[in-house]
This record gives sequence, structure tokens and C-alpha cells, in this order.
Amino acid sequence: MERLVYYNGEIKPYDEVKIDLEDRGYLFADGVYEVINVYNGQPFKMEEHFQRLKNSVEGLKIIFEDYKKLKEQANILLKKNDFKDASLYIQITRGTAPRSHAYPDGMEANVMMIVKKLKRNPDSYYENGIKIITVADERWPRAYIKSISLLPNILAKKKAKNEGAFEAVQIRDGFITEGTSSNIFIVKDDKVITPPASNYILNGISRRVVLDICVELKIEYRERGIAEDELYSADEVFLSGTTTEVMPVAEINNHSLGNGSSGNISRRIFKFYRNLLG
Amino acid sequence: MERLVYYNGEIKPYDEVKIDLEDRGYLFADGVYEVINVYNGQPFKMEEHFQRLKNSVEGLKIIFEDYKKLKEQANILLKKNDFKDASLYIQITRGTAPRSHAYPDGMEANVMMIVKKLKRNPDSYYENGIKIITVADERWPRAYIKSISLLPNILAKKKAKNEGAFEAVQIRDGFITEGTSSNIFIVKDDKVITPPASNYILNGISRRVVLDICVELKIEYRERGIAEDELYSADEVFLSGTTTEVMPVAEINNHSLGNGSSGNISRRIFKFYRNLLG
Repeated sequence: MERLVYYNGEIKPYDEVKIDLEDRGYLFADGVYEVINVYNGQPFKMEEHFQRLKNSVEGLKIIFEDYKKLKEQANILLKKNDFKDASLYIQITRGTAPRSHAYPDGMEANVMMIVKKLKRNPDSYYENGIKIITVADERWPRAYIKSISLLPNILAKKKAKNEGAFEAVQIRDGFITEGTSSNIFIVKDDKVITPPASNYILNGISRRVVLDICVELKIEYRERGIAEDELYSADEVFLSGTTTEVMPVAEINNHSLGNGSSGNISRRIFKFYRNLLG
Repeated sequence: MERLVYYNGEIKPYDEVKIDLEDRGYLFADGVYEVINVYNGQPFKMEEHFQRLKNSVEGLKIIFEDYKKLKEQANILLKKNDFKDASLYIQITRGTAPRSHAYPDGMEANVMMIVKKLKRNPDSYYENGIKIITVADERWPRAYIKSISLLPNILAKKKAKNEGAFEAVQIRDGFITEGTSSNIFIVKDDKVITPPASNYILNGISRRVVLDICVELKIEYRERGIAEDELYSADEVFLSGTTTEVMPVAEINNHSLGNGSSGNISRRIFKFYRNLLG
């Protein structure tokens, strides 16, 4: 089947979409994005993703407002591509203008959506846990905006892959912020602990789902700073994210976690999460 | 005349060039760039810009090597566009691949060049000096790489424009780093002082030309940290940059510089710089 994408109001074949040389997304990373997963034809937490998209757009003062139409088009695009399980990528850039750092007022945003067949992580990752490394958090302080200015993230993720790890967890001033595309949690004495949703982290949709699950399962949780050292003495460590789902960590910088990969609490949360996906 | 651009080996009309939706420059800010000015048909400091482009490409481990051909194509493109004074923009991204933070090994870079008629700043800016504001430096610590991950820069520049200023000068931990697209110098007791070329600043070609001019003019200079406070007590302040050239600062955050806009030393350096441009 021909691959269809959405661009500025139209759904058309991938190869027919042209990004302008002077799109500010291409020249300045001047844009934002979301990734929404679809399970059995149902987008997961679509409202929450659209709300965050709106927050990001407003955070950068990009001019875009018609989320209602965008959501309709997203649903049409998903139907036309017709994958049972899919991943929907939405990107909104400030628009196209002759290159100049300061953007002109009143620019019209460029909006793009791609749908792909969902590629899930191997079951063994969830069963045995994965390896993470820690790296210095080199991102700007506005990580709460889901922007396409992702150069620090991708270099850290590549470093992780090169070292046989699944994810790089970032450390700022000795404290954990988050992974390059996931949030992080530790479990200590039956309590789930995760860094607070400050400006230094992206407040993940899955992160919030995990906290809701804790409430459902009557697991105590706390949002507070986590020093890097605490990672090694944690009873369990796990990641959350749209693609990551809820994934146990078995190894940190070549240090094995005492309790093995998928401790009791991580496993309970993972199972609950999986059930939500339908 | 039809506008011609260079893309991946070919020179063609602007409208015929298509950037792929999955170019990593568009999705991840995964690329680098240079801006080279041309005066009377002669590119200024082309070798130095190409050397820095190479450093940036290597800094991100982008696979690109044929600078010789690129330079030939740049010269052909400049001839075909045929502006007396021009600005040449070169952008190299890691390439095109299905979206994933960690890039695949062995990707082929995408290379783009645009030429524009040079738009110089008004003479009055150089005669009377301009206004700058100071902002927190929110960029990542690898500012020495001239990457397209420019979101902090463009937001700071827009803030400056909104406040009627020419440039936003960035402050990290109480010390000056640089403008969003320029380097900064102060003059105190007949000495020129500029922050050292650490990882927190882009070592500008024009910055280095200014230091060379100091040697020529027997003006003492020093590269050392400059506390924000020193801006206000400086005898003179000026900026350097490809488009900025050597531009005196008359006002900082609504504080007028005692010595007026274009002090003696700034003016001498500016005149020498202008003469170099031919």
C-alpha cells in the first residue's frame, strides 16, 4: 500500500510532500511534536497528547489553533493507513520564511503527520529488564516543551546504543532528570519515586499513567529529586514512555541491580499498563 | 532571475528541491551550518568557514568528506546567482532515515546551499551603536559546534527584537558567553577583552579576525571570563559576526554606555575590518 502522510491540510503520498528549504523546523529546530500510539485501532491517551501539543505550541508562541480539525485529520489518516497497531507522529513548525534568527510575526505554522506500523519492543526487554547508562544532561532548561531541538537527546541515545544499552538517563547537578525519550522511576522500600515535573523534564503522558496506576494499586509514590547514587541502591528501577511502555531496568552502567530485572512492583505496574492498552 | 540552490550534488531552482519528511535535520535538529559572506564577488574567509564546517561535521560524527567538491559547487552556485555582494548558507544534516532517536550507522548526509543577495545592516548602526539586552544562556554546553539546534538562540533573538534591541547577549553563571549570532568584546583601559573560546561559545571567524586586527593595530587584548557587571562599567562594548561585522553597543538593558556608542578603539577596529572586506 502506498504510504500516506498529512501535510498542511492534505493527505497525500509520502513522496509528494515537499518540505521547504526554509521551513524553520529545518533551519532552526523551531517546532514541536507528539508521538501517539494506536492499539487495536484505538489511539491511546489522544486527548492528553493533544493537550500537551497545545502546551508546546503555546510555549514557543507558534501560531496554530485548529486542534479539532487536526484531530479529525489524524483519525482519517489513521483509517487510511489502516494498521491495527500504529504510531502517529505529529510535528508542527513555526512555518516558512527567509532565514533569520528572529522570526517574523504572524507566521503560518507547517503541520505534518506520519503514521507507521507500531514496532513494539521485544518481550524479553520487559521480562528480563534492560541496561541503561547515565550521561550528563546537556539539554536546555525548557525540557518541559516537547520541541524538535533534540540534538542532545539523540547523541545520548546513540551513546547508549553504542554501549549496548537501551536508554541514556540524564543527570543534572547530580540528580536524575529523565531518559532521552522516557521518564524514570525507582522503587525503594515499596515506594515508587520519580523526579517532579519541573522545567527540566518532559511530563510524560505514560509517566502520569504510571502515577495513576500507583493510586489504583495502592502503591505509595513520591515525586522528589533522586540523586544519582540512589539508582544503585534502589530495589527496582523502571522507565516509562509511549514506545517504552513500562520497562524494568536490570543494569545501570554495568552495575547489576540487586533485585534482578523485574521486581515485584515494576511488574505489577507493567501488567496494569499493558491491560490499559487494550 | 530564477533562484538557484544546491542540493545533494545538483544545482536547481529553489522550488524543485524537496526536503524529505524524515530528514534528520527536520526531525531532530541533527545537522550543522555555515554562513559565508561574499563582497565584490569574493567570499570572505571561505577557508576558515570550511575548516569550521569540517569541525562541526566531525563534532556530530556526520559522515561527509568531500569539501573540495562542495567548495567547487559553492563557487559555481555563487557565479550562477551572480550577486555582487551575497550571503552563502551551507547546511549539512546527518541524512534521511525512518524516525528513531539513535541514528543508523553509515547514513549519507544531506547537503544544501542557498545564496542570497547580501543585506547589510544600516550605516547608522555602526555610527551610533545599537542596543543589546542580556538573557540567561539556555543553550547546551556544546555551543562550539555550529549546529542547527538553535531554538534557544532564536527565542533570545526574538526577545531582543521585541524589546527594540539588536542582539541578546547570553549570561551563564554570571559570566558573558556571546550573542545569539555574534561574539562580544569589551574595552577597558585601552584593552580589548573577550571571553575565551571555551565549549560554551562558538569561536567566530569574525571574532578571530578582530583579535588579528588588535595585533595589527597594536591594541592589547585578553581572552578571559567577563562578569555581567563589567559590561556596564566598560569603556566600550562591541559585537562581531559575519553579518554583524564589528558593531558598537550604545545601550545595554536600557543602561547607556558612558562613552557613547562608538568609542575610539571599536571604531578603529571596525574601520580596519571594513577595509578587509574589499
